[in-house]
Amino acid sequence: MTRAETFEPGTTGIVVQNIRRADQTIIDGLAECGVATVHEAQGRKGLLADYMRPVYSGTRVAGSAVTILAPPCDNWMLHVAIEQLRAGDILVLGTTSPSNAGYFGDLLATSAMARGCRGLIIDAGVRDLRDLEEMGFPVWSKAVFAQGTIKETLGSVNIPVVCADALVNPGDIIVADDDGVCVVRRDEAADVLEKSRAREANEAGKRARFAAGELGLDIYDMRGRLADKGLKYV
Amino acid sequence: MTRAETFEPGTTGIVVQNIRRADQTIIDGLAECGVATVHEAQGRKGLLADYMRPVYSGTRVAGSAVTILAPPCDNWMLHVAIEQLRAGDILVLGTTSPSNAGYFGDLLATSAMARGCRGLIIDAGVRDLRDLEEMGFPVWSKAVFAQGTIKETLGSVNIPVVCADALVNPGDIIVADDDGVCVVRRDEAADVLEKSRAREANEAGKRARFAAGELGLDIYDMRGRLADKGLKYV
Amino acid sequence: MTRAETFEPGTTGIVVQNIRRADQTIIDGLAECGVATVHEAQGRKGLLADYMRPVYSGTRVAGSAVTILAPPCDNWMLHVAIEQLRAGDILVLGTTSPSNAGYFGDLLATSAMARGCRGLIIDAGVRDLRDLEEMGFPVWSKAVFAQGTIKETLGSVNIPVVCADALVNPGDIIVADDDGVCVVRRDEAADVLEKSRAREANEAGKRARFAAGELGLDIYDMRGRLADKGLKYV
Amino acid sequence: MTRAETFEPGTTGIVVQNIRRADQTIIDGLAECGVATVHEAQGRKGLLADYMRPVYSGTRVAGSAVTILAPPCDNWMLHVAIEQLRAGDILVLGTTSPSNAGYFGDLLATSAMARGCRGLIIDAGVRDLRDLEEMGFPVWSKAVFAQGTIKETLGSVNIPVVCADALVNPGDIIVADDDGVCVVRRDEAADVLEKSRAREANEAGKRARFAAGELGLDIYDMRGRLADKGLKYV
Amino acid sequence: MTRAETFEPGTTGIVVQNIRRADQTIIDGLAECGVATVHEAQGRKGLLADYMRPVYSGTRVAGSAVTILAPPCDNWMLHVAIEQLRAGDILVLGTTSPSNAGYFGDLLATSAMARGCRGLIIDAGVRDLRDLEEMGFPVWSKAVFAQGTIKETLGSVNIPVVCADALVNPGDIIVADDDGVCVVRRDEAADVLEKSRAREANEAGKRARFAAGELGLDIYDMRGRLADKGLKYV
Amino acid sequence: MTRAETFEPGTTGIVVQNIRRADQTIIDGLAECGVATVHEAQGRKGLLADYMRPVYSGTRVAGSAVTILAPPCDNWMLHVAIEQLRAGDILVLGTTSPSNAGYFGDLLATSAMARGCRGLIIDAGVRDLRDLEEMGFPVWSKAVFAQGTIKETLGSVNIPVVCADALVNPGDIIVADDDGVCVVRRDEAADVLEKSRAREANEAGKRARFAAGELGLDIYDMRGRLADKGLKYV
Repeated sequence: MTRAETFEPGTTGIVVQNIRRADQTIIDGLAECGVATVHEAQGRKGLLADYMRPVYSGTRVAGSAVTILAPPCDNWMLHVAIEQLRAGDILVLGTTSPSNAGYFGDLLATSAMARGCRGLIIDAGVRDLRDLEEMGFPVWSKAVFAQGTIKETLGSVNIPVVCADALVNPGDIIVADDDGVCVVRRDEAADVLEKSRAREANEAGKRARFAAGELGLDIYDMRGRLADKGLKYV
Repeated sequence: MTRAETFEPGTTGIVVQNIRRADQTIIDGLAECGVATVHEAQGRKGLLADYMRPVYSGTRVAGSAVTILAPPCDNWMLHVAIEQLRAGDILVLGTTSPSNAGYFGDLLATSAMARGCRGLIIDAGVRDLRDLEEMGFPVWSKAVFAQGTIKETLGSVNIPVVCADALVNPGDIIVADDDGVCVVRRDEAADVLEKSRAREANEAGKRARFAAGELGLDIYDMRGRLADKGLKYV
Repeated sequence: MTRAETFEPGTTGIVVQNIRRADQTIIDGLAECGVATVHEAQGRKGLLADYMRPVYSGTRVAGSAVTILAPPCDNWMLHVAIEQLRAGDILVLGTTSPSNAGYFGDLLATSAMARGCRGLIIDAGVRDLRDLEEMGFPVWSKAVFAQGTIKETLGSVNIPVVCADALVNPGDIIVADDDGVCVVRRDEAADVLEKSRAREANEAGKRARFAAGELGLDIYDMRGRLADKGLKYV
Repeated sequence: MTRAETFEPGTTGIVVQNIRRADQTIIDGLAECGVATVHEAQGRKGLLADYMRPVYSGTRVAGSAVTILAPPCDNWMLHVAIEQLRAGDILVLGTTSPSNAGYFGDLLATSAMARGCRGLIIDAGVRDLRDLEEMGFPVWSKAVFAQGTIKETLGSVNIPVVCADALVNPGDIIVADDDGVCVVRRDEAADVLEKSRAREANEAGKRARFAAGELGLDIYDMRGRLADKGLKYV
Repeated sequence: MTRAETFEPGTTGIVVQNIRRADQTIIDGLAECGVATVHEAQGRKGLLADYMRPVYSGTRVAGSAVTILAPPCDNWMLHVAIEQLRAGDILVLGTTSPSNAGYFGDLLATSAMARGCRGLIIDAGVRDLRDLEEMGFPVWSKAVFAQGTIKETLGSVNIPVVCADALVNPGDIIVADDDGVCVVRRDEAADVLEKSRAREANEAGKRARFAAGELGLDIYDMRGRLADKGLKYV
Repeated sequence: MTRAETFEPGTTGIVVQNIRRADQTIIDGLAECGVATVHEAQGRKGLLADYMRPVYSGTRVAGSAVTILAPPCDNWMLHVAIEQLRAGDILVLGTTSPSNAGYFGDLLATSAMARGCRGLIIDAGVRDLRDLEEMGFPVWSKAVFAQGTIKETLGSVNIPVVCADALVNPGDIIVADDDGVCVVRRDEAADVLEKSRAREANEAGKRARFAAGELGLDIYDMRGRLADKGLKYV
């Protein structure tokens, strides 16, 4: 539960080159569990804001965050970040000021995929949706907008960034699916995976009982507490 | 056009157990007509706000409303409501204060389906989208968000609730499809179905004429009134 | 880069009957290029606001704009506009005051298709989504809402309209796909197509290099300028 | 806690002429307590949505609701409603479909004030702000917008309306101040006033203790329960 | 009702130096009438979107528009525009893509005031609110935000711009007060002023009758038409 | 530019008791400079989102952040935080999930003022506006809403929190005025104050030149670069 990051969110002009990443089998395990389970398993924290939606549905991924702080309407740092990608990473972009411009499209997706990137989480806009879906490159974004961007102002790569209300450190694990996006701290990842697996096992049993017609009121033994609170049936 | 409900919207701590429902054949008829037709047939009333969108598209359902008033970020009353479900019902949840939390997911859907529930209309968030679609359980919601909820504060079940700008009484008929959600009063349902059928018949004739190239200007005899209002062709 | 339109945006009570249109082969060429490419090729202008989304995805169209200025919640002018359609046109509707009402559904779509219309761009709401998709009539809108409209107040047809932050003149070319909507001035269309083709050719080469693992940093020769701006690798 | 209204929300074409009102001394008492106290005293219900803001600040009023259901962009029913006003009433307007148009300005305010009206709660827009403030006529609205409205379609007066997420019955008491707007059921008004007074008395004592430096942790005896929940001081 | 502008909205890199302006006495007359009256007098057109609010209240101004098209987060063109100001002008800024950045503060206000500028209408953000109010420089904006801007990309000055849903040509008259902002075409200004004066005279008579207790139902002779539409009193 | 915080944003159940604070004279100096100047002086970072507005205008404050992470609709942690306040502090509240509920009113303000607190920054709602203004306790919030909150779930005090898109560490300096809210890192405060003072001195000279009618084009020597970019005067 401790951290010792080197750079403050908001710092510009920095590229951190060798970030630490979690074990890939842990990351893959978290992907299997999905956003809702991982969010619950780590104590209901880590969700990005609900406006972050997949640009096409049906995908579930996890990866190590390569983070980007970018100026509004300026996608220069994406090019810088792609060089820092390793197979299994996910790009996470926050901005220094709100923007819905189209920072990312099919060419950058081609470049990112060539380096093994598993997806993009961007608190801004993207374009070339048809290409992104055909390529199978998943994106969660705030907007779809074709607005072109410039390359004039520095941001940073691999410093902590605020993305859609959540702080993401480089090397944190991103889990994303149709429910949205969740971040897991790197040093909590193994523990969160274990708790997620336990939750899944527990839910499997519950699901069978629910399917058989049992009620949550009985499975969770809620009737007494509801009566204590004063619930009246009429 | 009269009503005599027992409880006020906003009342908490009450579960009404035996609500009256409309005839199932009427309900099924309304489902066939769909939201836009039913809305028009009953005099352009009953629509829920346009932010209520299906979490996956392609479904058209109708059912009797089992209503839920729930506190923000607290899904306890959903468990209470599920016990009140009968085959053919639709859950309708309004909140005492705005919330986008994830009140409902695959376990509650399993439980609701086990009791014959046809869907959920929720002025808040849901999660487990992939599961909901695989199970074929349709949901119209304000948000998709995995945020977990608590079980601490009472609301009510089967009292009138305001859901997405509309008042829904228990036992009212809910019609929902890709166009959104519409509520029909129980005692108006038969009349609304009749008018919906009439509208459909009328539109079938119109559609053929439109398809053959006739203009609305002529079909609806609009040219004179447009000229009277002063429309000028240049 | 000049224009000499006859009527002001906001003028009501006017129908301009014989607008000039661009050459159909140019229009079809722009459709092949798509929104993002055309937007870039014409100097990053012409995009409609990002809230204009396709009601179903996977379509790419272009056509000559038949423009409509309509009062809030009043779809009368759509009937007037349909008479002005020629094969290959796209309807573009702006309102005199904001509205999310359902101006357009399956009957009007049937009528528009009967006259060769390729789609609708509407800064308001539509309904009958299932029908629109089955008919293959593409729509980009601000809202999906079944709310019925009235026919009481005049607007205009084929005058310049502001639609989702963009000025659209009658006869301008509309390009629309999953990325949104872009408008091209009629007298710039040939030039924009040429630049779009050039951009596509250029991007094809780039895409191959990106796919082979080359970096944007090198392809676009960015390293020196980044260093000049002070970017530090740590 | 029961009700027996005659007309459904959404019904159009009706004017209910002689509604019952609460005792004026109770209404005036509620005005003195203000929105936050009344909301708490009646069990945290009755608030209108937070987008309902005063168009100028510093006013606190209460009155009996004369309700209006109005079509979008059509203010005809306001004229009908003003005839139904008695001294001490407050106009409450909900719409059949969302609208931000300017339904109300200085002329209607003059007319309403001439009949003793204390204010307007409107889930739409108003205009002539300078005049309204100079006249001392308070308004809580969703928007300030000068957009003119038409007089074409019937709504209703003095039926239950949904206004900004809350159901308001004719004759309910409206309390409004800089914190927003709260509705109190007519038959609960005396009870709510009594509880509001009790709450005020209780808070006066608490305020003195807080001002003297005592902590809520001690005044409300929270330390044990916090520790039980696991709060750790480090 | 005709126009013949030289440059298209969206064109960049152009400064038009000598625009035509309306007669100053007409402009001052429009300022006295205010936004709501002018909007009505010109046939309910010309309003900017309702999100354009004064940063401090109590001001009413009119002036000739010096228009600015600016890139997102880039205020370079404001410096260019200020050179084009003459006494009595109002700056009107639209952006090529949405931005809430703080384009304008006390230094630019000082510069604009030194040239006789009467105010700013900006579809983006401003800062230094305290200074602006102390200086008495009125601003209507989409946002208040201190975010700094850059000076890298060209826009244009004195071409037609879309600002908050309205097209504004250079030299058009801007009227702005607490109700919002309205644009009047230069060649319609004299006519609009005459109609505004007539409306004011008409309203003065109406106001006296309303204040004396007469009803709009009688003043406007609405009862018969309401009955014809089917309004029922119960 | 380094940091070594002990707890992660999102951690619950923790109260850090003795945080480090910046020198009070530095804090007071930053208050004099105001948000826009401080934001610029520290390299255009640190702004909270523009939806954070003062509930009444005309105040400018700075103080050391005592941070609060609170669950949605649950204000328990505010009581815990107030015990941690020292004279000169500012409360900063972020939530674990979005909420507009009324976490804070006159009683908590009385308690906070009794301990020397200078204000509240809250990414949620507040109430009792009239009292807050009369007491002179300044608040910047996302919403004004009287909705009552509960005391059921733990959050944390004095851990880093994300508040309105910005990361705030305990002991960071908050500067707030009518332009919004800006955060300054504790260990950068002295440097930022020095740069802010320099900026103010520089702007004073500029202001005099602007007031005398000099143009930014000349003061900043922009004409050459504009011409190089291709700006054309016509």
